[in-house]
Parts: sequence; C-alpha cells; structure tokens
Amino acid sequence: MSELNRSIYLVSRPEGMPEKSNFKTVESPVPQPAEGEVLVQTMYLSVDPYMRGRMRDVKSYVPPFPLNEVIVGGVVGRVVESKNPNFAKGDIIAGMLGWSDYSISNGKNIKKIETGAIPVTHALGILGMPGLTAYFGLLEIGKPKEGETVVVSGAAGAVGMVVGQIAKLKGCRVVGIAGTDEKNEYLRSELGFDATVNYKTTTNMRQSLAEACPNGIDVYFDNVGGEITDAVLTLINYQARIVICGQISAYNMEKPDLRPNPFTQLLIKSAMAKGFIASDFANRNQEGLAQLTEWVTQGKLKFKENVVEGLENTVEAFLGLFRGENLGKQLVKVHD
Amino acid sequence: MSELNRSIYLVSRPEGMPEKSNFKTVESPVPQPAEGEVLVQTMYLSVDPYMRGRMRDVKSYVPPFPLNEVIVGGVVGRVVESKNPNFAKGDIIAGMLGWSDYSISNGKNIKKIETGAIPVTHALGILGMPGLTAYFGLLEIGKPKEGETVVVSGAAGAVGMVVGQIAKLKGCRVVGIAGTDEKNEYLRSELGFDATVNYKTTTNMRQSLAEACPNGIDVYFDNVGGEITDAVLTLINYQARIVICGQISAYNMEKPDLRPNPFTQLLIKSAMAKGFIASDFANRNQEGLAQLTEWVTQGKLKFKENVVEGLENTVEAFLGLFRGENLGKQLVKVHD
Repeated sequence: MSELNRSIYLVSRPEGMPEKSNFKTVESPVPQPAEGEVLVQTMYLSVDPYMRGRMRDVKSYVPPFPLNEVIVGGVVGRVVESKNPNFAKGDIIAGMLGWSDYSISNGKNIKKIETGAIPVTHALGILGMPGLTAYFGLLEIGKPKEGETVVVSGAAGAVGMVVGQIAKLKGCRVVGIAGTDEKNEYLRSELGFDATVNYKTTTNMRQSLAEACPNGIDVYFDNVGGEITDAVLTLINYQARIVICGQISAYNMEKPDLRPNPFTQLLIKSAMAKGFIASDFANRNQEGLAQLTEWVTQGKLKFKENVVEGLENTVEAFLGLFRGENLGKQLVKVHD
Repeated sequence: MSELNRSIYLVSRPEGMPEKSNFKTVESPVPQPAEGEVLVQTMYLSVDPYMRGRMRDVKSYVPPFPLNEVIVGGVVGRVVESKNPNFAKGDIIAGMLGWSDYSISNGKNIKKIETGAIPVTHALGILGMPGLTAYFGLLEIGKPKEGETVVVSGAAGAVGMVVGQIAKLKGCRVVGIAGTDEKNEYLRSELGFDATVNYKTTTNMRQSLAEACPNGIDVYFDNVGGEITDAVLTLINYQARIVICGQISAYNMEKPDLRPNPFTQLLIKSAMAKGFIASDFANRNQEGLAQLTEWVTQGKLKFKENVVEGLENTVEAFLGLFRGENLGKQLVKVHD
C-alpha cells in the first residue's frame, strides 16, 4: 500500500465557535499492524456535539483531546489486514478510532458488527452511542410514565429523535423543539411527535411551549440549554425530571453562560435534574442494544442519517452541528 | 376573657427584603370555639425562611399567603378551651396556626405532643418540619455513603445543623458553611463537623472549600444558593447529589438571580440536583420522627434554639433569618 493516510489533528483549542484553523490534515504512510493488531479502513465516521467538550483543556473524567494528535471518535470500518486472532480481513467493526482514512487497533477499542438487514451506519447512531444515550437517559433518568408530557430539545438530532419515539412507545405526549419547519414536519409526520415548536421562528418560546403542553411538562430531555431550557423550566410540573444530556448552546460560549437560576424552579416544583453520559450505563449496554435492535427490527423506531462524503469535509460537518444543520445523525462517509 | 388577641397580618407583598410595613398587628377579642373546635393559646411560634416564598404572589403547589389575613406557620400551644372530643383543656399541641396570641382550630391542623423529657419546642425544630426536612432530604435525596464528603450551606440553621449531624452518624466527612466564627466554632466543637468555612470572611470561597474538601464533594445540601452554591458546583465529584432545600440568597432579590449555568456542571459530572419540601415525604413522617426521636433521646443529635420573647418581636425575628443572625432554630415565645 503506497496510498497515503490522511488524519485530522486538533492543533489549537477553539475559543468560542471552532474554526477550520483549529484543525490540520496530516498525511503519512498507511500504518502497518504489529502482532496482535489490525489495520482498519474507515468507512464512516461520526461527528458529535460532545466532542466540542473534549477540545477544551478542562479536567474532567473524560480527558481532553491532546493537541497535535488525531481526533478520536466513533468509526465504522473494515478490517483490511489482521494480526489479531479475533478479527479477520473483511470484518466490519465499530469502535473509537481516529478521524483518518486508516487506523491501527489492538482489538480492545473495536467490536465486530453484523452486516445483515440493519445498515452498518446504525452502529454510530440508533444502535450506538446516540441510541444508548437516548435509551438510558430517557428511561433511567427521565422515567416517563404513561400519559405524561415529555419535551425534547434538539429533537431532530441523533439522540433527540430516538428519545421522542421511545417516549411515544411508553404512551407519553411528546413535544419536540427543533430549528426548522422541515425538521418539525418530519418529527410530527414521520416519527409521530404530538407537537413541535420551532425555536427559531417563535416570538414567544414560553407561550408556544405552553400551548404545546396543556398539562405542563413532566420530563424534559435537554440537549441544548440556554433560553429554550429557561422557558421549559417555567412550565415543569411537580416532581418533574430533567435529563441533562447536552447544553449545546453553551459549548461555544466565550463568556460564562449566565442563566436565571434553575435551582429555584427545581425547588418550588420538587423537581430533579441529572446530567449523564452514555458510559454511565456501560455495564448495561447489551440490554439497551438488544431492546433498541428489537424496536428497529419491528419498525417501531425509525432513524435518519445525514451523510457527507469525504474525509476532507469532516470538520465542516462537525461545525454544522452547532449551526443546527443536521436532521438526524451526522456522518461522514470516508470509504465505500 | 376580656383579653385582646393580637394577630400579625401580611398587608402588602414585599419587594426585595421584607420590611415591617409589609406587616400589621391587628387586635380583636379572643375568639370563641364553636362545636368541634378548640381554642389554642400560642406558646411558641416558628419563623422559617420558606415563609418568604409564600409572601410572593406566585402560583405554586403551596398557595401564597392571602393579603390582609393572619400569617400561618408552625406553632406550639396549649388548649385553653375545647369543644372537640379529641382534645382536652391543658393539652399541648403543635400545628399550623396563626401568628397570634390565640387561634381557633377544628382539630385537623394540630396534634397533641408529649411533654416529657423532650422540650415542647422541639416539635417546631428537630422533631418537626426542620428535622424532617433534614432527615428525608439528606437520606432520600443526598443518599450519603460512608466515607463520602457532605457539604452543608446554612449549616448553623435549624435544618443545616441536623443535616450535618446525621451525615456524621452515616460516617461521612462533614463540612459546614456559615457566616460567623461563633457559628462555625459551635458546629465543629459541639456538633462534630469536620471542617467549616466562614463565607463572610473568606477571600476565596472556592479555595477555602477545596481545602476543606480534599476529596471533592459527593453530597451538597443547599440551603442558600448564590455564590456559595456556584463555588460548591465547581468541586463536585462524579455522580454527586445536590439536595436543593433552600435558595435563601435569592428569596429577596428583585432582579432575576443570574448564575453560571449549573446544568453544565451537572452534565460534566453526571451529577444530580433535586428540589424538595418536607411534605413530599408526608406519608413517611412517622418513620422520620421515630428515628429522630431515638437519636435525640440517645444524645446522638443535638439541637440549638434561639428564642426571642414576645409576639411583638415576631417580624423582627423573621427578618433576622435573612441577615443570618440565628444560630439554630429561630423561635418566638408568646406565652408561658
């Protein structure tokens, strides 16, 4: 293989909205696997809002991306060379690998996936981290009960659309918040959401939400934070549950994100808010995947993917997440 | 009885810090009980921070105090006349009654209390609403585990001092935050707190807290909100639990209480925050009271009361709560 391997490095930490200059594409020879390793050709890679957090140099239990190294995220790829007995050439795998044409793995950060009726890309979406995030966040933290009202912000994103559909399966009234009429139309007509609010066109977020939620809000699955969340908090019911999955409106802020103190609302409503990431439930992944796979196979859960072609468009696809461009899971197709 | 009955009315809704002009003392003849009613002479009444919330005209599941009526709160009193078969003249009762010399009750909002070794005033403190608030809030929401670090703000108040002592009984490191050296000395030497921070004299709240909490913060029992809570949130551990019992720093604010968005901290630490009031656990009051009474009888829980004499000093005692004057439960003694 005299082909070159392109890799996208983080070369400086973004302040505010990331810019292309924070990234650099580095070319090098395709690496060779050592004993116990495999060489993976990237088929699809995933860009996700949480990755913005890892670009910050803030101590957390998820370490920041190191500078001047390849960015690592969710990848579906093909084993093109194997010196690891657990993998054969041609296997399709999913795992945490680099934003590169090719990656080396020792087999510990990848797993084989089935290539049957379910598209392989689902391993990065509804049957991967976003699906598990929706599943455990909604059911284990939100604990929706039949007849309750569930509101989802970022509703047309990879996590939000799964949250809304699972809430429907549980017998809830589901209200989605998204930023285009096209997205909202999709949520209502294709995914069965009961109502939607376009946060970009409404002139009164609180009033629009109040109209969509005549019985108040019992569960709020929060992907966005900011003014949308401020409005939701004024409408929560006694003993409401708020699932804090993301605060995308704050990720690129340079100033502190000052908000009307949400603890006051939690106090007067005896309400609960809990942050989480999918890995909090890592020891239950099999259970979650089994249920999600069953629902997908039965046609009870639909999923939308938005695929951009070419590794060279990865950074642009990532930046698009923060402009609210994607309807469904944003993926980059790197190799067939 | 030709004696007059004084009653303290709320006559206007405070904006910001309440003022004496928001209240008026009204004199009327001592009322006479009808069939099924009792006449109660107030011995002690309780002033509590939560009552500030009820002075606001905001819809909540606890209704606001009506204007031009007597303010109702916790009272310990003596039955001086009974036309109710469940109560006899001379019974000592606790209940929700007016800020008055005398009140009429139909018997539903009062209960008889024992008058043995335990002071009757405890029914307004450690064996009443504040004790139950501490007990259920800490154990059912905070869920402290042995060896964890528990931080309590408003630590020298009626709720805070019970929280800290129960956390010690559960084997935790306990750090109290209070506003005078005298209070903090009391918490450490009398109640066994491991460390304290004086929020009024520290020049760097976050650093003082970090020094007091070398292993981070697992449970935060929040009575105050504001900058103290902002600092605590920067030091919470993975899966921390925040018990939102009060936000006293915000109760008298005229502007929105803008705070660095706490949801961001909850998100990156997979932490939980829950508001509550004692009545959320009303169906378990007997269990809580039994345990608190056992601990008090065994000398495992101590309690401090700060008694002001005279109904005419009630409003001043109430206002003192917001100046951080009280060490322990603030009571007003009305009649022997």
